[in-house]
Amino acid sequence: MTDFAFALEPDGLLLHSPDGVSRRFPWLWLRDNEPAAFHPVTQERSFDLLSVPPDIFPERAEMRDGEILIHWPDLPGPCAYRLDWLLARAPGRRRPDPADIAPVAWADDHAVARFEAAALAGDEGLGRMLSQLKRDGLVVIGGLDGDEEGVALGQRIGFLRETNFGVIFEVVSRPDPNNQAYTHDELGLHTDLPNQHLVPGYQFLHCLANEATGGDSVFADGFRILEDLRAAAPAAFRLLAEVDVPFRFRDRETDLRIRRPLVEPDAAGRPVRLAFNPGILDIVDMESGIVGDWYRAYRSLKALVDSHSRRLQLRLKSGEMAVFDNSRILHGRTAFDPNTGRRRLRGYYIDRGELDSRIRVLHGAQFE
Amino acid sequence: MTDFAFALEPDGLLLHSPDGVSRRFPWLWLRDNEPAAFHPVTQERSFDLLSVPPDIFPERAEMRDGEILIHWPDLPGPCAYRLDWLLARAPGRRRPDPADIAPVAWADDHAVARFEAAALAGDEGLGRMLSQLKRDGLVVIGGLDGDEEGVALGQRIGFLRETNFGVIFEVVSRPDPNNQAYTHDELGLHTDLPNQHLVPGYQFLHCLANEATGGDSVFADGFRILEDLRAAAPAAFRLLAEVDVPFRFRDRETDLRIRRPLVEPDAAGRPVRLAFNPGILDIVDMESGIVGDWYRAYRSLKALVDSHSRRLQLRLKSGEMAVFDNSRILHGRTAFDPNTGRRRLRGYYIDRGELDSRIRVLHGAQFE
Repeated sequence: MTDFAFALEPDGLLLHSPDGVSRRFPWLWLRDNEPAAFHPVTQERSFDLLSVPPDIFPERAEMRDGEILIHWPDLPGPCAYRLDWLLARAPGRRRPDPADIAPVAWADDHAVARFEAAALAGDEGLGRMLSQLKRDGLVVIGGLDGDEEGVALGQRIGFLRETNFGVIFEVVSRPDPNNQAYTHDELGLHTDLPNQHLVPGYQFLHCLANEATGGDSVFADGFRILEDLRAAAPAAFRLLAEVDVPFRFRDRETDLRIRRPLVEPDAAGRPVRLAFNPGILDIVDMESGIVGDWYRAYRSLKALVDSHSRRLQLRLKSGEMAVFDNSRILHGRTAFDPNTGRRRLRGYYIDRGELDSRIRVLHGAQFE
Repeated sequence: MTDFAFALEPDGLLLHSPDGVSRRFPWLWLRDNEPAAFHPVTQERSFDLLSVPPDIFPERAEMRDGEILIHWPDLPGPCAYRLDWLLARAPGRRRPDPADIAPVAWADDHAVARFEAAALAGDEGLGRMLSQLKRDGLVVIGGLDGDEEGVALGQRIGFLRETNFGVIFEVVSRPDPNNQAYTHDELGLHTDLPNQHLVPGYQFLHCLANEATGGDSVFADGFRILEDLRAAAPAAFRLLAEVDVPFRFRDRETDLRIRRPLVEPDAAGRPVRLAFNPGILDIVDMESGIVGDWYRAYRSLKALVDSHSRRLQLRLKSGEMAVFDNSRILHGRTAFDPNTGRRRLRGYYIDRGELDSRIRVLHGAQFE
């Protein structure tokens, strides 16, 4: 740390490090983020930004034992900034996030990552499964034999997210379905609840019984589908990202509507969210002149969704649970005959924020 | 209905109504939204868009008793479209939404709307309170005298939204606070949990006891503050809307982070969301060159937040509950002395989707 040097410039501290890189720390930034001004227990910032003038400038600064001590005109003693703390937080550099795991899109030749519940009992195994889930968007967990084991695993990750279907939903064939999932019909590939203001993040589907004829699970990677659409028909991709459409679910108790585009790209144009659910797509209401183009684009997307070269079909057995990113992975099932045996799935959601938080905590990142 | 006329044009049905307005309904739109193709119980669409060619054209159409019957080449019988159904859903016309209530921004001369719990016992009273809440962003409900009455009222609106602080949180002074709210310090005006991927929609704060010296509640309308900022310093407003910043909360169990700008405008530039919480604003990490401008903009916003001409101070009494939009209304409290008496608030959140749904259901809109 002895090869560091610094200069007090009008617009901030200029720190020269031995690697030859100079970093600039604006004065108000340094004052606002003075390490000792964060509450020792809550870690919340207690500094009032308006308590100092906007052009605050230190009286002096000195380097000592890997720290820079800055003497502010409004404080009795100096504030100590560790050099490694400064280097890790230099403006223009984002803090690393263990939950920021890049997705890798897949097609029908994908081998779904499989984990045994016993291997997830420890923190390391759980962390490995969650990292794989972030990468692939889909994992299958085996060996969850008791009815409650699927929920218990989720509760180690975070609280279960309630929706109008409850905290936990049982997917069984019902005489009075308020949703197509509660029939024995084929369920085309879709994402769940794009009609919600806050779309659920990850879905957990624990198979408790699958003894009926039919009822295989089907999955497809929406990112792969959207990448293919963007490459083959960029104008269609853009139109689906630009035109927002109404989604809606209603029953006696609820009328849950939202407007959003089917596709959400990031700033670089790469797909980061897919909302695909023809059943609860409300009647689209864009101007008559673009309805034709929009339907052509939507058909192109649907053709890719239905393409067998992009989908996986697998049969969940009792004790297996599929876990998937609900804004990326499309899921569905083949029809089944409820007269040939029981088929029961228990499902719930955990949102992205809680799942990412668990990855960070397992990684020990929360104290960084 | 006898003065309607129609024509089969290449790109859709052209419907002439007696008011002289002609509306165009593209053919694929008509086929996709054929009213009888929606499941009678789930109301979900069952039509497969790829089951017909993109240029589908009817064999013929006829008008009868307020309906147009369209004979599609792929169906054995005609599909009936009611004229009033068509008029209400013509492309380019958004379906009316009873929950779409325009906000009216307010300053310190605002008289907070007050409702007595007894008047909310029926659906009409509840609906009136919720409409006012959407308009003003803040209401106070009196007469909730039992400890559980505040929660019971919320449950009539929708399920309570869980967060890392639980489903229900008790705001009391604690020896081991993981959040500044759980101290007896002054709490500066802020919005709750902007660090969350899904920011809670509405906050409900039920006062169970307020016997200590101090502990008044403070509120300000973030929309008013942002409108004032936009008028006085449009470049600052834009910068706060363009630069995303990290928010973060961490404790032993959680590490909840997200990046978002402080201000979110709609397409017309009007503020629709505010994220303001200096305590859990993480160390900002934009490029060094814009840090200075960003801090100047943030100071301008903070000066308006702190301005007494935009804030209300009121004292919640036992049995009163404040309800407010958590992405619009800033809330805080004056410091209190825990040695002078008890101060207990019970809080929870209900998200926007569920609250809007309740407005629609109370309005009878879910069957429209």
